[in-house]
Amino acid sequence: MTQLMTTISLGAAIVITAFFWVADESGSPVTVAPQSKSYIELINETDYEGVPPLAKPGQLTSVAKNACPHCSTDKAAKRQQYPCQLHNIKQHDKYKGIEVESNRWIRMACDEAHQSVKAGDGPFGAVIVQVDDETNHVIRYWRCRNQVTRHVDPTAHAEVTAVRNVARELGVFNLGQIRRDDTRLKLPQPGLTSHCEIYSSCEPCPMCYAAIRWARIDTIVFSATRFDAAEPGVDFSDLDLYQELATPYRERERNGFRVFQATTDNSLDAFNLWKNTDKVAY
Amino acid sequence: MTQLMTTISLGAAIVITAFFWVADESGSPVTVAPQSKSYIELINETDYEGVPPLAKPGQLTSVAKNACPHCSTDKAAKRQQYPCQLHNIKQHDKYKGIEVESNRWIRMACDEAHQSVKAGDGPFGAVIVQVDDETNHVIRYWRCRNQVTRHVDPTAHAEVTAVRNVARELGVFNLGQIRRDDTRLKLPQPGLTSHCEIYSSCEPCPMCYAAIRWARIDTIVFSATRFDAAEPGVDFSDLDLYQELATPYRERERNGFRVFQATTDNSLDAFNLWKNTDKVAY
Repeated sequence: MTQLMTTISLGAAIVITAFFWVADESGSPVTVAPQSKSYIELINETDYEGVPPLAKPGQLTSVAKNACPHCSTDKAAKRQQYPCQLHNIKQHDKYKGIEVESNRWIRMACDEAHQSVKAGDGPFGAVIVQVDDETNHVIRYWRCRNQVTRHVDPTAHAEVTAVRNVARELGVFNLGQIRRDDTRLKLPQPGLTSHCEIYSSCEPCPMCYAAIRWARIDTIVFSATRFDAAEPGVDFSDLDLYQELATPYRERERNGFRVFQATTDNSLDAFNLWKNTDKVAY
Repeated sequence: MTQLMTTISLGAAIVITAFFWVADESGSPVTVAPQSKSYIELINETDYEGVPPLAKPGQLTSVAKNACPHCSTDKAAKRQQYPCQLHNIKQHDKYKGIEVESNRWIRMACDEAHQSVKAGDGPFGAVIVQVDDETNHVIRYWRCRNQVTRHVDPTAHAEVTAVRNVARELGVFNLGQIRRDDTRLKLPQPGLTSHCEIYSSCEPCPMCYAAIRWARIDTIVFSATRFDAAEPGVDFSDLDLYQELATPYRERERNGFRVFQATTDNSLDAFNLWKNTDKVAY
């Protein structure tokens, strides 16, 4: 397997592109996304190895290196407070039957998360691979990271960022079946169809999971668990959010979350019009 | 209550702003969001009326006007196939105890959805109001719509778009408590703190619900239900997605969705480094 890659290495160069701010006919401002590249193209034969095989019993949990690279601080008290975690935390049989070995893509997603922390961003990374269905070659891939603080965007988790970049750059929003004859498709592919799979350094939160599914990506591989993310010092727990989604609306208020369904005579105007309008299906 | 509004009416004018495409130290390209306005400022006393009161028994379901504005098509067969829907569909006591009356904000969200269809976008709208905690006045609000097809972004549902716009324009990602003394805050507010509430034309999907919660918005009012959205001709069902999220991972494969947890020795590098790094908390 040859892994000759053309890395789009922008280095420290700054490219300035025109960004358009326009108003549509209703007067609402809309933004038009710029055209730009964030993927890495694989230009030689690169067979996609697929999802790794199921892990063997003695191998079900990641074993971190004893001293993680760069994982040190001058603050001894802090180091003592949050010692390096060596194993994934798994509870309630949640991962039973879905535990697999490693491959280069999940390692890359975890590495992206690591690089992200070094660059001052959140500790999450995601890689989307585009696989040609005829040749089973990886055509290209996207490495993305959490950009919540960088872009002041609470939705810019690694997986959401990846889905957005891929859809924008391919020009299509169904990433589960990308057709070469789709006139909207902006990047070449050898076979008639291709599809995307996603590798994430951490178990997707409900927002990311749903974003991945709306993009019609049907294969998700993650490494760290929601329990790892909830550990003290990491403090990215989505355990409450998962719990909240599993609770009837009327019972959420006791936790301070108020959800209401409002009765109004224009409630169904949009859907009724939509039914009888010729439109872009998606 | 005076409703004197300064509408930022861009009309058909096109403003070109610089959009920066840069590479960070790891070589990964990152985009820097442009500064731009999409809100409407309320410059006179505008008391926030709050979430509407609970609806009375005979009023629990929206009654659409018999002929919805613009809700007609030349295609008689289509009109017959998808007749106008007059009432919200509610099942399984899902909305029991959370059904409220109408106010101007939920009507505005539904109107935004309606305008969106007219403009060729998806039939969903959302309004975020920013309320000053000292004066209980609405400071400003954002009207947003689904932009999935317009921006080729599977995540650009109305609520996600609204959260993104508000966070970017306010300069903060916690929209549940906006502090005047926050040095990142980019827009003025009279009181020490303010907060946002969201009105959505339709029940949020899991992605939007989680996005709203990540932005720390704790009050959600919606009008059309998930069952309305799933009706033939509307065809935006998230019923399967809600079901999928409530199903153990290992049982999702029978529906074609594959989720795996991978064992790798760099699984915890990012979290371990994050624990011992000084960073922006969020």
